Amino acid sequence: MGEFQLIERFFKPKPASAGVESSTSAIHSVVLGIGDDCALLQPTPGQQLAVSSDMLLEGRHFFADVAPAALGHKALAVNLSDLAAMGAEPLGFTLALALPPQRAADEAWLAAFAGGLRALADASACPLVGGDTTAGPLNLCITVFGQVPPGQALRRDGAQPGDELWVSGHLGDARLALEALQGRLPLPPDALAALLAATRQRLERPTPRLALGRALRGIANSCIDLSDGLVGDLGHVLKASRVGAVVEVDIASNLIAYSALSTPTEARIDPETRRRAVLAGGDDYELLFSAPPAARAAVQAAGHATGTPVTRIGHLDTQPGLRLRDAQGQPLATHYRAFDHFDK
Amino acid sequence: MGEFQLIERFFKPKPASAGVESSTSAIHSVVLGIGDDCALLQPTPGQQLAVSSDMLLEGRHFFADVAPAALGHKALAVNLSDLAAMGAEPLGFTLALALPPQRAADEAWLAAFAGGLRALADASACPLVGGDTTAGPLNLCITVFGQVPPGQALRRDGAQPGDELWVSGHLGDARLALEALQGRLPLPPDALAALLAATRQRLERPTPRLALGRALRGIANSCIDLSDGLVGDLGHVLKASRVGAVVEVDIASNLIAYSALSTPTEARIDPETRRRAVLAGGDDYELLFSAPPAARAAVQAAGHATGTPVTRIGHLDTQPGLRLRDAQGQPLATHYRAFDHFDK
Repeated sequence: MGEFQLIERFFKPKPASAGVESSTSAIHSVVLGIGDDCALLQPTPGQQLAVSSDMLLEGRHFFADVAPAALGHKALAVNLSDLAAMGAEPLGFTLALALPPQRAADEAWLAAFAGGLRALADASACPLVGGDTTAGPLNLCITVFGQVPPGQALRRDGAQPGDELWVSGHLGDARLALEALQGRLPLPPDALAALLAATRQRLERPTPRLALGRALRGIANSCIDLSDGLVGDLGHVLKASRVGAVVEVDIASNLIAYSALSTPTEARIDPETRRRAVLAGGDDYELLFSAPPAARAAVQAAGHATGTPVTRIGHLDTQPGLRLRDAQGQPLATHYRAFDHFDK
Repeated sequence: MGEFQLIERFFKPKPASAGVESSTSAIHSVVLGIGDDCALLQPTPGQQLAVSSDMLLEGRHFFADVAPAALGHKALAVNLSDLAAMGAEPLGFTLALALPPQRAADEAWLAAFAGGLRALADASACPLVGGDTTAGPLNLCITVFGQVPPGQALRRDGAQPGDELWVSGHLGDARLALEALQGRLPLPPDALAALLAATRQRLERPTPRLALGRALRGIANSCIDLSDGLVGDLGHVLKASRVGAVVEVDIASNLIAYSALSTPTEARIDPETRRRAVLAGGDDYELLFSAPPAARAAVQAAGHATGTPVTRIGHLDTQPGLRLRDAQGQPLATHYRAFDHFDK
């Protein structure tokens, strides 16, 4: 199969069925999709364009045996999460794909991958508008574009001393799943299976918090998505905004969804592993944001309106750096590092 | 060096020097560049967004020993060429980069690559606004964004029977350079060196025809950029526009710039090799466009105004398919195929 047939057959969006309407108007912004030198989109006049690009490699960002539908989902989800973190509304995305010959010939794999991608694209009103395919080691590069009214984007550099620090959803479960898959959690087989059953979706099918991001426009002073771990990503906000932070580690550690399920003693994750998964786990794709105390009710209303749990985990101040505190208010000295692709 | 330092040090655009002004206003469309979840751009209100993405792999799209500055230039040039083919004005681009550890540690290589990229970005008023870096087999994925007034984009599907068929610049030299580098041209060493000296720039540093593309708005009925070879790329236009074409092969074959220089008999390229390089060579990054006969003077004026040679190589009609004709008007039966990344 040649590259043009491959795109045509597996990736070109199907025309919408009669009676099926997109949840937003974004689909209708596509003037010209796959098949020309460029795609053409018609953004809402005057809005700003938000752009982000991520590259995912087999063996580094995902396992070679990951379910292809999950891979399709995740490749787009991590990019949509960047739009969510800016409070942007999706317009579309491009996919550049390097495929080893055996994958290019594996129609079941391609169909499942394209299906996972398309399901999230449809659910997010973010159509595939163009891209590239080539033969090579498996590599997925997705670039998403969205729009946001001028001045309303949620940036990293807008955090203010006195802001409360919030996080959406759950933290750490994706890392537990990763460690379980890597054989690094010392649990009995039954407990490991139960843990994987409870956490694997969080690793393989993260939910981009698009609705929450948009709902936080005009409420949050700063926002970032959690891809490399809470400590590392919060560090970017602190640096960009020139503020410091106090994080209540026990509150954050309770954001592991799995911990609530792990009643049998032998299946429990030790506190240090939980803490590490929450603080430096990565792959959460939740939103970390700050808002003034006066906006607390508005933040909770935004979470409620979008069906997204939001939890206050600390606050910002003028003292440089990040301070971790336990439930007794005692400082925790442990150093948690973010994931860095060129760091050993 | 970590990934954030790598971006900061080599790729983040330097603030413009005082007194240096961009040739267009595109630079000023960047509201927020590298360093947040998304970049933010402010397109001209009401304009359409043009988007294209290309992935380049070592060993497939470029040689491992290519000069890194040339690689930086070409990676962006092939994407800008897609904007040119739509008649779009550049707004910015993202770069996702997988680097083997030894390349990530090679500061001279990175600086030269980033320098080549930045020189063309500056010259094209198309700033780097974001991206991603990861460790892996060398892979460059660039996505460019541009803007074009609604209804004015040059598309593949607008060609009309009766249109004249035009091409910019020169064809085939990039392919001659590639074949020379691969040791596939049966020439004496001196002639080979002379050929490479004359053609290598065309392979490694193609010139995106941005100014010509914009000048052809309202004049050309269709346009495509030549990346896979004249026959293959013209085939896309014919299919999209449901027209046929006649191409004067001898006129096209004379568009090899090198042929004019090759006076010594032993350095001459045989006619069939020249023909193949022009018709199915690829890597030309020229514009192939069609316009009504009445627009002939306007096309020539657009070429003149932008300093770009334009040559009429044939015409379109209603008879399906592509017909190649020699100088005597005789049909040429030979079948020339375009390059396909999954085709053996």
